[in-house]
Amino acid sequence: MKRTIFFKNHPKIIGAGSICGPKESEGSINEFIETKLSDDMYGQESFERAESNMLFTAIKHAINGAKLEENQIDTIIAGDLLNQIISSTFATRNFCCGYLGVYNACATFSEALALGATLIDAGHMDKVVCATSSHFSSAERQYRYPLELGCTRPPQSQWTVTGAGACLLSLDGTGPKITCATIGRIVDFGVVDANNMGVAMAPAATDTLLTHFKETGLTPSDYDLIVTGDLGTFGSRIFKDLMWEKGFDIQKQHVDCGELIYNICEDEYQGGSGAGCSALVFSSYLYKRLKQKKLKKIILIATGALLSSVSSQQGESIPGIAHAVVVES
Amino acid sequence: MKRTIFFKNHPKIIGAGSICGPKESEGSINEFIETKLSDDMYGQESFERAESNMLFTAIKHAINGAKLEENQIDTIIAGDLLNQIISSTFATRNFCCGYLGVYNACATFSEALALGATLIDAGHMDKVVCATSSHFSSAERQYRYPLELGCTRPPQSQWTVTGAGACLLSLDGTGPKITCATIGRIVDFGVVDANNMGVAMAPAATDTLLTHFKETGLTPSDYDLIVTGDLGTFGSRIFKDLMWEKGFDIQKQHVDCGELIYNICEDEYQGGSGAGCSALVFSSYLYKRLKQKKLKKIILIATGALLSSVSSQQGESIPGIAHAVVVES
Repeated sequence: MKRTIFFKNHPKIIGAGSICGPKESEGSINEFIETKLSDDMYGQESFERAESNMLFTAIKHAINGAKLEENQIDTIIAGDLLNQIISSTFATRNFCCGYLGVYNACATFSEALALGATLIDAGHMDKVVCATSSHFSSAERQYRYPLELGCTRPPQSQWTVTGAGACLLSLDGTGPKITCATIGRIVDFGVVDANNMGVAMAPAATDTLLTHFKETGLTPSDYDLIVTGDLGTFGSRIFKDLMWEKGFDIQKQHVDCGELIYNICEDEYQGGSGAGCSALVFSSYLYKRLKQKKLKKIILIATGALLSSVSSQQGESIPGIAHAVVVES
Repeated sequence: MKRTIFFKNHPKIIGAGSICGPKESEGSINEFIETKLSDDMYGQESFERAESNMLFTAIKHAINGAKLEENQIDTIIAGDLLNQIISSTFATRNFCCGYLGVYNACATFSEALALGATLIDAGHMDKVVCATSSHFSSAERQYRYPLELGCTRPPQSQWTVTGAGACLLSLDGTGPKITCATIGRIVDFGVVDANNMGVAMAPAATDTLLTHFKETGLTPSDYDLIVTGDLGTFGSRIFKDLMWEKGFDIQKQHVDCGELIYNICEDEYQGGSGAGCSALVFSSYLYKRLKQKKLKKIILIATGALLSSVSSQQGESIPGIAHAVVVES
C-alpha cells in the first residue's frame, strides 16, 4: 500500500488569493490577507451566497496574482462544508473552465492541492486553481443551531472561520513548489461529541504524519513548520502527545492554522476551524512567507471531521481524516 | 484552456462490483448485477446506513473480482448524494487505505474514474477503487419529502436508483482500459424545477461531448456507445436535439443509464437518476460487455445537477455538469 505521491516536476503555486470576515480581520495574521470584509454578508441576501461570493473572490485574487486571465485556467478544484458543496458550485459557475468538486470536510484544501498537483505534474492540465471556503453563520445553522437561538457554546468547541483561500498551480512561472503529498485514511477513535472535533481529528493527523515520515524517510527537523489545519488548542496538544508517544518530538515545528487565525480569547474557545481555515492561512500568511523564503519547507496537514447532522443524530461516531502536502520555497 | 486528459499508460479496470435494490433487480440489466437485494434496508436501521453498506459491498466485490486483498488497495475515491457524502465516509472507514471524497452530484462516478485513472497513469498509486452510490429513500427524504407524506410525483421526475457500483483501476492485470477523460464545466440554463433534472443536465452533457469531439478529433461513429448518466427519457431527447443542432447525429450510439436501468413504466416516470445510477450500470452491464469485447469503445458521460435543498429554497437555478471517460475493451 502506498499513500505518498512524489511529484517529479514540482508544480508551483504561482498565485494565491485570500479573503476573510470581520472577526478574522482582527486576528494575528490579518496583515497578510488580501480582502478583509467589514460585513460578513458581503452584499448578499444569505450567508450561503456570501460564502460563495467569498470563494469567487479568492479564486479571482489567485488568478490576478499570477497575472493571468480567467480563460487561461483549465480547471478549478473546489469544495466547502455546505450540503452538496453549493458554495463551490455557485462560485465556479462564473468561470468557463472545468470544475471538479471535492469533499473531505476541513481536509478538503490539502486534498484539492494534492489532486491539482497530480494533474499539473503529469502535464494533463496547464493551470489549475485549488480553493475552499467556510462561513461561520452558514456552518452554524447547518451543523448546529440557528444563530438566533443564542445557544451557549461548550469550552471544547471551535469557531468556524469565515474565509476562503485559493492557490493557482502551474509548471511555468515562479512560486513555492509542491514536492510531495500523503493521502490520508479514515481514522475513527469513536468520538461522538460534535463540539469536540479537534480530538476526533488528532488521531488522523498523527496517522498521516507517521505514514509520511515512514514513506519519505524524513523527520520533524526536515521541516521549518509542521502545520495542521484546525485541530485547535486542545486537539493540537493531543496531536503532539500522540506523535511524542510514537517517538517524534514536533513541539518546535508544530503550528495549527486554527490557533494562528485568531488572537485566541474567550470567544473562539479552541480556535478556528472549517474548510476555509487552512485555505485562508496557507493562501495568505504561509504562502507569502514561503515566497519571501522566510520559510523553506513546510508540510500542511489539513484535518477533517467527517460528520453530518444526520450521522450525528443517528448516533454515529465522527471519523477523522488528514491529507498532507509538502511545499518548498 | 484544455479539458481533455489523454492517459499514456491506459489504466485498466481489473475488477468491478455492483449491488442494487429490489426495484432495480427487476430492471432490464438485472442479470449483470452481482448482488440484488430483496430488502432495501439491507439489514440496517436507517436508509443512510443501508446505502453506506451497499457502497461497502460494491467496493468489496470490485476487490474480490480482481482477486486482490483489501490491504493491496492504495486509495478509494468515492462520493454520493447525501449531505457531507456520509455514505462514502462510513463505507470507506472499514478499509485501511487512503480516501479521497469527491462530489459532483450524479456526475461523481466519472469524476472519480478520471481522477483515479490520473493517479494510476502517473504511477503514483498501484491500485485505486472508484465508487459511488445512491438510495431512493435516503435521497427522497433529504432532497424532497419524507416518504410517509406520500407526495404525488410530477411526470417529468426521475427515480433515484438504489444501488452502488465500484471499479478497481490498475496498470497491471487485464480489463477494459481508460484511455481518455474530458472534465466538465458548469453549464447553467436557468432551470429551477428540482423535479426536472434531465433538462438541467442536458446542456452540460452537450458541452462536454462537443468539447471532447473538438479536443480529440473524434466523431460519434468512433464509438459503439455514447452513454449518458441519468438524463432520463425527456433529458435524453433534449441532449440528442442539442447535439444535432451542433451538427452531430448521435441517435444510433446514444443510450442513457437512467433509461437502461428500469423497464420504464409508469412508476419511474423519466427513468433512473442518482450517483449510483451510472456507477451501477457501468460496473455491471457495460463493464461485462466491454470485457467480453461485445463493446469495443464507449464514452461514459455521467451527468450531475448541482443543487441542494437550501439553494433551491433560496431561489437558485440548477447548474449542470458532466464528466466524460472513454473506456476501450
